[in-house]
Amino acid sequence: MTLREVRWIDLPHVSDDRGVLTSIESGRDLPFELRRLFFMHDMRGERGGHAHRTTHQVIVALAGAFNVEVSDGSESAAYVMNDPHRGLYLPPMTWVRLRDFAAEAVCLVLADAHYEDVEYVSDWSEFVALSRTARSLT
Amino acid sequence: MTLREVRWIDLPHVSDDRGVLTSIESGRDLPFELRRLFFMHDMRGERGGHAHRTTHQVIVALAGAFNVEVSDGSESAAYVMNDPHRGLYLPPMTWVRLRDFAAEAVCLVLADAHYEDVEYVSDWSEFVALSRTARSLT
Repeated sequence: MTLREVRWIDLPHVSDDRGVLTSIESGRDLPFELRRLFFMHDMRGERGGHAHRTTHQVIVALAGAFNVEVSDGSESAAYVMNDPHRGLYLPPMTWVRLRDFAAEAVCLVLADAHYEDVEYVSDWSEFVALSRTARSLT
Repeated sequence: MTLREVRWIDLPHVSDDRGVLTSIESGRDLPFELRRLFFMHDMRGERGGHAHRTTHQVIVALAGAFNVEVSDGSESAAYVMNDPHRGLYLPPMTWVRLRDFAAEAVCLVLADAHYEDVEYVSDWSEFVALSRTARSLT
């Protein structure tokens, strides 16, 4: 991957006197079919600290705010997450770290694959080596 | 449907010193494949006030609390939503109303179908008639 592939995705939402409804259709509003989601709350310290070998993800700040740092093993970029109406798309092989959580923050992550332990790269040195190899092949 | 089909679904979650992560796998932790989700915040007054003809749904209180009232056109039941680790499963043809929202409430709804306008029954009298007919056929 390159950091340029990380991008915001606007999420369709409707606001009226009953509040705000944000809708996400699998394969339409996301660049993939939705097969898994997870959400996190009461977040403290740092989360993430890994990459996915093949999984595509979209991160949404449903409530509160936090920061996301992404890296391709050579460069990094940082995003402030505080708008429930847009998601941050992460292609496979993006190293991601989440931190600076507001107490009320709720983070939703949408993914195109079921959970598999072997799908994670959790060692930074391995990630850098894998990314360097991938770049040399393209 | 009958009201007995409405039920809680426990959502797998892991709690550690980084917070709580709740995971939902399409077709595994849900009694259907996930094709759409929507979330609501800044909710006021009443939401819902309709049934879906064929869509299955699961409602989760991601933050804060609210109440859900369901009806089969003849009987009703009420649920307090305040636990992000369980979802309320609603089969097709469940009339649903959401209300009494805490200011910080965030409601997540998972569904097995893409949005279709004709899928909704928004007239209570029509819903009662359709439900009565369905019951007389079973």
